[in-house]
Amino acid sequence: MTVQTTERLVKLRELMKKPENNVDAYVVPSEDQHGSEYIASCDERRAWISGFNGSAGCAIITLDKALMFTDGRYFLQASQQMDRNWELMKQGLPGVPTWQDYLTNNLPASSRIGIDPTLIAENDSKSLSGSRKQAESKGSQTLVPLTTNLVDLIWGSDRPPRPKNAVVPLDEKYSGESVTSKLNRLASAVSSNTPAPLAFVLTALDDIAWLFNLRGSDIAYNPVFFSYAVVHFEPSEADGSKNPTAVLFLQRDAVEHDADLKYALGSQVEIRPYEDIWEYLKDLGNQVRSTFADKGQEKLVLIPDKASLAIVQAVGVDISNIAPSPITVLKAIKNSTELEGFRQSHIRDGIALARYFSWLEEKLGEEGNELTEWQGAEQLEKFRSELPLFKGLSFDTISSTGPNGAIIHYSPNPKDCAVIKQDQIYLCDSGAQFLDGTTDVTRTWHFGTPTEEEKRTATRVLQGHIAIDSAIFPNGTTGVDSWARKALWMDGLGSIVIHRHGTGHGVGHYLNVHEGPHGIGTRITSNASPLKAGMIVTNEPGYYADGKYGVRIENVLIINEVETPWNFGDKGFLSFECVTMCPIQTKLVDHSLISVDEKRWLNNYNHKVWEKISPLLRNDDRALKWLERECQSI
Amino acid sequence: MTVQTTERLVKLRELMKKPENNVDAYVVPSEDQHGSEYIASCDERRAWISGFNGSAGCAIITLDKALMFTDGRYFLQASQQMDRNWELMKQGLPGVPTWQDYLTNNLPASSRIGIDPTLIAENDSKSLSGSRKQAESKGSQTLVPLTTNLVDLIWGSDRPPRPKNAVVPLDEKYSGESVTSKLNRLASAVSSNTPAPLAFVLTALDDIAWLFNLRGSDIAYNPVFFSYAVVHFEPSEADGSKNPTAVLFLQRDAVEHDADLKYALGSQVEIRPYEDIWEYLKDLGNQVRSTFADKGQEKLVLIPDKASLAIVQAVGVDISNIAPSPITVLKAIKNSTELEGFRQSHIRDGIALARYFSWLEEKLGEEGNELTEWQGAEQLEKFRSELPLFKGLSFDTISSTGPNGAIIHYSPNPKDCAVIKQDQIYLCDSGAQFLDGTTDVTRTWHFGTPTEEEKRTATRVLQGHIAIDSAIFPNGTTGVDSWARKALWMDGLGSIVIHRHGTGHGVGHYLNVHEGPHGIGTRITSNASPLKAGMIVTNEPGYYADGKYGVRIENVLIINEVETPWNFGDKGFLSFECVTMCPIQTKLVDHSLISVDEKRWLNNYNHKVWEKISPLLRNDDRALKWLERECQSI
Repeated sequence: MTVQTTERLVKLRELMKKPENNVDAYVVPSEDQHGSEYIASCDERRAWISGFNGSAGCAIITLDKALMFTDGRYFLQASQQMDRNWELMKQGLPGVPTWQDYLTNNLPASSRIGIDPTLIAENDSKSLSGSRKQAESKGSQTLVPLTTNLVDLIWGSDRPPRPKNAVVPLDEKYSGESVTSKLNRLASAVSSNTPAPLAFVLTALDDIAWLFNLRGSDIAYNPVFFSYAVVHFEPSEADGSKNPTAVLFLQRDAVEHDADLKYALGSQVEIRPYEDIWEYLKDLGNQVRSTFADKGQEKLVLIPDKASLAIVQAVGVDISNIAPSPITVLKAIKNSTELEGFRQSHIRDGIALARYFSWLEEKLGEEGNELTEWQGAEQLEKFRSELPLFKGLSFDTISSTGPNGAIIHYSPNPKDCAVIKQDQIYLCDSGAQFLDGTTDVTRTWHFGTPTEEEKRTATRVLQGHIAIDSAIFPNGTTGVDSWARKALWMDGLGSIVIHRHGTGHGVGHYLNVHEGPHGIGTRITSNASPLKAGMIVTNEPGYYADGKYGVRIENVLIINEVETPWNFGDKGFLSFECVTMCPIQTKLVDHSLISVDEKRWLNNYNHKVWEKISPLLRNDDRALKWLERECQSI
Repeated sequence: MTVQTTERLVKLRELMKKPENNVDAYVVPSEDQHGSEYIASCDERRAWISGFNGSAGCAIITLDKALMFTDGRYFLQASQQMDRNWELMKQGLPGVPTWQDYLTNNLPASSRIGIDPTLIAENDSKSLSGSRKQAESKGSQTLVPLTTNLVDLIWGSDRPPRPKNAVVPLDEKYSGESVTSKLNRLASAVSSNTPAPLAFVLTALDDIAWLFNLRGSDIAYNPVFFSYAVVHFEPSEADGSKNPTAVLFLQRDAVEHDADLKYALGSQVEIRPYEDIWEYLKDLGNQVRSTFADKGQEKLVLIPDKASLAIVQAVGVDISNIAPSPITVLKAIKNSTELEGFRQSHIRDGIALARYFSWLEEKLGEEGNELTEWQGAEQLEKFRSELPLFKGLSFDTISSTGPNGAIIHYSPNPKDCAVIKQDQIYLCDSGAQFLDGTTDVTRTWHFGTPTEEEKRTATRVLQGHIAIDSAIFPNGTTGVDSWARKALWMDGLGSIVIHRHGTGHGVGHYLNVHEGPHGIGTRITSNASPLKAGMIVTNEPGYYADGKYGVRIENVLIINEVETPWNFGDKGFLSFECVTMCPIQTKLVDHSLISVDEKRWLNNYNHKVWEKISPLLRNDDRALKWLERECQSI
């Protein structure tokens, strides 16, 4: 559905021309001020100005052009959603520049480029300055940080209000570690930095939620809340204590149970209003500068590399050390309480999955009964919502029949989606947030008789899944990704980067379903961060036959240390423990392809699911019977 | 055995101090003037001045110090061979600088560093200039190219003469392509360069041997000859022909059969004396500069990035385009004649291997008979030398018993080596040069009863070997290396880079046994060059138990296009064809580890060896019986 943007663009250009702004181009990125992957609707500025609401893209509006830079996942969607005012810049195709290079090479030398400094990552502003530097011969364009967001001005009262939902402590029986302990571990982790930082500014919402054992609901699917935080590492002169202290910036309305929160956070953590962060950072910068100026020290304030330009400028670039957030790795390695929570929440999740898939099979078998993909997703959510500790879904359910399964980021539109067909492959990728863990599981089912091709490709995906699941690898490696591809390549399925998505990603503990820094994949981001014991990672190879069907099998894995007969290199070896508890359909197995060991793996897995889930299905005879059948050995 | 270097160093320092030299440090690298991996004894300057004769290392002699920079493979050997004048710089250990960084940081600001510009790669001289740039604050050291090699002056008449062996044409029935065709393909390959080069300077000896279909014997194991060459791409004004022409610089004494050579090379190729290259390149530079100066063009002469500083300086850096040699890829992709030659030469090689291993088994079984590792290697060479088209070995035979098998680059010293033990694992890595191909094969044998540990680790290596051999992968990938590690990691064997050497390397066609640009391995050099149809690569995973034994199974593989049920990405898929024909010992297989598919692979392989080799063993009953037994199914 195309969105009419003519009026919006006219107004935006009027604002751009006003003397107090006076910019030749205005950049509207996707990000919110915290660099979130999922954003609140009040932050969907790029979608509002352009009509294109995919997850990735950057809009550039000049006085006579409007350009949308996005990648291959969204070429079709963007071209459908944007009106004729917009030109689609297909990133990744030969000859198509990045938005930074576009500005450098297509705008006149003396151009002024307007940006909202709270929305642009410091990194991206640097790469823009970088390309400007390259083109020095063309004269220098100016990056103009505008303090008021121009899109917000036009959006006006139609813009949804910023959510200010309650911020709630997460009990230590779920988090497994006190805030004091986390602050001390953070202090210890950064103490070896050169120079050791005096303070650390937290800007990523899940970093803050993790550190302070708090959860919220400001952003769909991610139990986070709008906030900033500053941790001070310098010894307090007041009480001589060496414990770090922190200031947490929260929206006033979100702090309903202030006393509870204060009690949960203890005396180390002070709560201040969300909007006070800017003044606070300026004061912090000045204080550090005046106190330590004589010592000739620099970079005393640690700022995450995903922080906005505005954050860095508030502190001052002279004393900022811009580096990956140390929380990312601390958060990625789960403690034993969190790991046990993952196991338990995945067993509960398995109940809902068994109830849903058995229900779906029965409904599809009833004559004249039509079920849409969306109705399926709704029923799955209903079963999940009945489970203890359930707090919501962890992402938009992908409930897809036949060809829709080949669209990687498909989610059914309630008003306009397909009817689930019994004779097509059904791919369902879904997950939930529980107080004790986050789930993310994909299963592929055929409720009729699969074709030989469907069985063959599904078996190749399963073989890839098994290769990863049963891997043993030295501590520190990232090199298991290609194992998922071996079986698929045997049949000429998949390119070098086979799945069109990574083979796996980290998962937060009752936090974001996509969590760094590690993963399994060929992208540098996945490979730069080695897999470590205590991390969670998904295993989700897939194959997508465009216009026909998609196959993906996704489980959540815990990384554990493992005993091996030898221990070459003395750094230890790691293996995976699967916590997802849902049968893998044996009907889709091509027996001529699968090895004895792979068959054993599959039977063992399905038996384990039966053992864990069947005792919990007493009230659902349909689900129990279905589970018994699906967990039979082949 | 320690070499006394005091006198040599005294003389060298006297030369360094002479007014015409006046240098504070002198660099003695490993390389010869062609960047050869193997070098002639007259070029072993670094070994002569230091006593350390390993294949890699760089000596730096200052007025009061002598330092040897080498890597982990050679720490032990270097410390044993060098006397007390020398300090060992263990490269790769924390805090140990590269020789370039050492010079920058440890020599005074105004130091003069002497080098032989014909021996230092242009690249290395740049990285030296690079580190000097970094340390600008320390003032600028000067790189002083000395036209006479100071080590050669001291070495004097003891220095072996440069070999000037005959240069012989390789018949087109072996090379499969005429010189004219190769020159034209070269011209076509570089025509898309920007700018298209007017001339190309060849400095690598195997590049020259390949392009001109010539072979020699100036360097042990490598059938190459000392030479340079220049190919001219500009249309000849004389005859209007568009064919490229070439000048080949050969040592006068090597051109015994001048008429034959001239006939073989045809009118496109002119022969000139080896030492005339320098004057020729200067003239070429001047000519290009004067003819094209007005057109403002640069980089019109293509020079390989492994060429020496002297070559680049002779042409002139202003018109030099320093880039990877285009011959490297042309040479790596074998034509159908070369591929058939690989198949046939490996079948012949298999005869010698069967004869040798059966002979060895019998001798070891004879009471009181003692055979040294060196005697074994000699016998193997004898069997090989009886084969048609045999031209020599392709490298020093690794004939190693027990603990010596764990020393990766071990080769037995005739005067002082171990007796081969029947109850230890025997590792033999060897190869030959034939007119129609080059072989390289490793087998691991136990002539008694292997321990459970030996069987288990040998089986893990075999499983890695099978994983690579049976791989199918998309055209353009390099990502199959980790498949060789999966089985080893299962038992905690091997680190991230498991074999302490690459999993595989390219092989020349009756040329160098190590040939680029591709390979199978985790090093960037291996992975930057994708595997392509027509390439040759070895498959040689291994495991090394220090002080006990080594296991390696190495076959030579041809890369072929393969039909797959699907062809995702439309670039096609590749698979391997094994040409090495020697049984893999089934006695070393642990039946509890090996899968049905792996067992089938092993039986199929050994049956194929039996089919190809047994008809050719009519005269050696011992070998035939041995082969029959070793090729039995398990």
